[in-house]
Amino acid sequence: MSFISHLAQRTWTSVKMPFIKTNPDKKLFTPGPLSCSQSVKEAMLRDLGSRDEEFLNIIKLIRQKLVDIGEVPPEEFTTVLLQGCGTYAIEAVFQTSTPRCGGRVLILSNGAYGQRMKKICDISSIPCDIFEFPEDSAVEVAKVKEQLRKGDQYAVVAVVHCETSTGVINPIEELGQAVKHYQPQAAFFVDAMSSFGAVPIRIQNGHIDYLVSSANKCFQGVPGFSYIIARKSELLKCRGNSRSLSFDLVDQYEGLEGNGQFRFTPPTHTLVGFVQALQEFQEEGGVKGRARRYKQNCTVLQRGMEELGFSKLVSGDSGGYIITSYYYPDHPNFDFEEFYYRLSQLGQLIYPGKLSNANCFRIGNIGNLYPNDMKYLLKCIGKVLDGMGVPVPVPVPAPISLPMP
Amino acid sequence: MSFISHLAQRTWTSVKMPFIKTNPDKKLFTPGPLSCSQSVKEAMLRDLGSRDEEFLNIIKLIRQKLVDIGEVPPEEFTTVLLQGCGTYAIEAVFQTSTPRCGGRVLILSNGAYGQRMKKICDISSIPCDIFEFPEDSAVEVAKVKEQLRKGDQYAVVAVVHCETSTGVINPIEELGQAVKHYQPQAAFFVDAMSSFGAVPIRIQNGHIDYLVSSANKCFQGVPGFSYIIARKSELLKCRGNSRSLSFDLVDQYEGLEGNGQFRFTPPTHTLVGFVQALQEFQEEGGVKGRARRYKQNCTVLQRGMEELGFSKLVSGDSGGYIITSYYYPDHPNFDFEEFYYRLSQLGQLIYPGKLSNANCFRIGNIGNLYPNDMKYLLKCIGKVLDGMGVPVPVPVPAPISLPMP
Ligand SMILES: Cc1ncc(COP(=O)(O)O)c(C=O)c1O
Ligand SMILES: Cc1ncc(COP(=O)(O)O)c(C=O)c1O
Repeated sequence: MSFISHLAQRTWTSVKMPFIKTNPDKKLFTPGPLSCSQSVKEAMLRDLGSRDEEFLNIIKLIRQKLVDIGEVPPEEFTTVLLQGCGTYAIEAVFQTSTPRCGGRVLILSNGAYGQRMKKICDISSIPCDIFEFPEDSAVEVAKVKEQLRKGDQYAVVAVVHCETSTGVINPIEELGQAVKHYQPQAAFFVDAMSSFGAVPIRIQNGHIDYLVSSANKCFQGVPGFSYIIARKSELLKCRGNSRSLSFDLVDQYEGLEGNGQFRFTPPTHTLVGFVQALQEFQEEGGVKGRARRYKQNCTVLQRGMEELGFSKLVSGDSGGYIITSYYYPDHPNFDFEEFYYRLSQLGQLIYPGKLSNANCFRIGNIGNLYPNDMKYLLKCIGKVLDGMGVPVPVPVPAPISLPMP
Repeated sequence: MSFISHLAQRTWTSVKMPFIKTNPDKKLFTPGPLSCSQSVKEAMLRDLGSRDEEFLNIIKLIRQKLVDIGEVPPEEFTTVLLQGCGTYAIEAVFQTSTPRCGGRVLILSNGAYGQRMKKICDISSIPCDIFEFPEDSAVEVAKVKEQLRKGDQYAVVAVVHCETSTGVINPIEELGQAVKHYQPQAAFFVDAMSSFGAVPIRIQNGHIDYLVSSANKCFQGVPGFSYIIARKSELLKCRGNSRSLSFDLVDQYEGLEGNGQFRFTPPTHTLVGFVQALQEFQEEGGVKGRARRYKQNCTVLQRGMEELGFSKLVSGDSGGYIITSYYYPDHPNFDFEEFYYRLSQLGQLIYPGKLSNANCFRIGNIGNLYPNDMKYLLKCIGKVLDGMGVPVPVPVPAPISLPMP
């Protein structure tokens, strides 16, 4: 029994709290929260006033650096930071960018995060069409062009860059070019939650107007805020659109630009941790350096998993190197919950699948992970399969063709 | 020049990041983010998986403990945790509790946070009346009764407990009783952001259906999430009301109850810090113990400020002991920005005013502050006034009567 569950069962007052040191952290092979460096966490050992000069400089620095890393001109683009998780930033972009009357959204979807965009729009009564593609391959540019040519006029076209539910990378630059060509009035919105910082994105070339990510993805910060890199000329058209005070990005932007503060209490510790995370990112060589390590992680993982007999959901290039989905072995002794639990006992946390129609699990390559961590994970997977009585190489399920979700 | 502003001006790659250790933290006499104990911050030196058993137990523990501290039966009440700042939780209550059709809100307001409630409703197109009282005194129960008796039928009646903009404490229990008497159909919603945990609140006696606060107020956690203590029978009536996926408290509740997880990435580090904060809260003697210390802080502060000649905005009992507002001295040499800056240079961060019609500043008594910290602050204030050439006792402005904001 872990200390915390122990805790939950005892009378509170009788409990001391040494749990903080007793359990060594498990390795997180997950797409977030992910493993952070010790130095990023130590950077949080500060208390900063939300109006104090030092903290205002931190805000400024982070906003500038994200524009820098996006390789876009600071006269044309800005970063809006938003308290909370990544989904909030996505909702905020929809709330802010779609006019209250007559604004229609098109979502290009090939997975759970595309579906979530649709759900956000539906609940907010934002008129929305979704154009769906199979989950195991990328959104097809030719079909999108066709749709844009003949379809409704849209205020916003949205797509996920790395569909973290499968690992598929969508061709956002070509998609953005198609949007600008066929629907020049539309804003192009990319959810680059799990890719920005580790997969090169040419924002200008892809005519991206809004790009969203969060603190604890490829920059390896601690979760607690998200951010939007926005084309100022688009953002500033949107005053008064938002149906939510909290998610009004124009208002948030004007606060950050005006007195340099967040409108509401910011997660100061998370933000100071992020400065350290950005520093470590830069020391690793920026997007190139981070991409290199994540690719190495991915190569080690994929080779090892192949040797163990596992079969990838996504074949070919569109699988990317952020996260990989594997089919469950086709063997009566394999039970995912058991597999997950045994790996967890060995200090290795993998991720369940998030697919509508296939039995998969996922292993992430991002965070404070190195090729040796991947090798150790593979060793643990071998051990767990052995313990469960699943033969290696694992029996592969018959190939299925994924229907639309 | 601080290290961070130095940093902002240099090329990024040439910079090492020793700033984390170089600047000792200033004391925060602010209503949040506030000073946290070192042990709360150290508790964050962990990486937890958001689906891992240990973390799920942390979520459960926090939710249970907040219901415990609220002294309400766990069969009738629940805690919903929400990523982000306190304003989000307030918006989420309005989004969730007001029916999409015909639901009308009444806000009882005597300050900036009441006004913010109105703004939230307006932007979300939630029909809303605001009943306003002067900022330097409490909401008047008799007048509210009259309004409830003759007014519209409301779906929700909302009030702020401690109006942090002034420090005024509103009589929420009597207000809640009036609401239940005259408008039994209405849900009663209390923003207890800066009071819960340090000012006793009898939730049942006040017929409170929704009580909101956040991690970094009187429990002295790190900012990053907020929470709602909700009457289950009310909450469960609200399925489908929310105009926002992110702020749908029924959906969030069902996630937390279902698989025990947050729907979207939680701020894991902030939550583990909060467990430690709760432990320290309990060790101090719970609400009683914390109230005792904050009252001591307040007494030391108010005596010292009186000796310096300062005049409080709020006279009598309704001022509470969370935060105190003081008029600017009436002297040509007094300039608030200068005063603030000089105190900040001495490591003391106070808070500006948030009043519509009077020149005030605020000093908070909450957070990891002790009577000796208040004494030191007073010494610094004396020194700064001397340096600015403002005589002590400071000249008091002529009393004004505050109009409605
Ligand atoms: C592509 C993508 N979009 C959206 C999200 C949602 O972000 P969050 O869980 O921080 O709300 C995620 C989270 O992993 C993601 O990978
Ligand atoms: C009474 C009250 N309500 C609402 C808020 C807003 O909370 P946040 O700044 O976390 O959004 C505050 C913040 O101090 C508050 O004191």
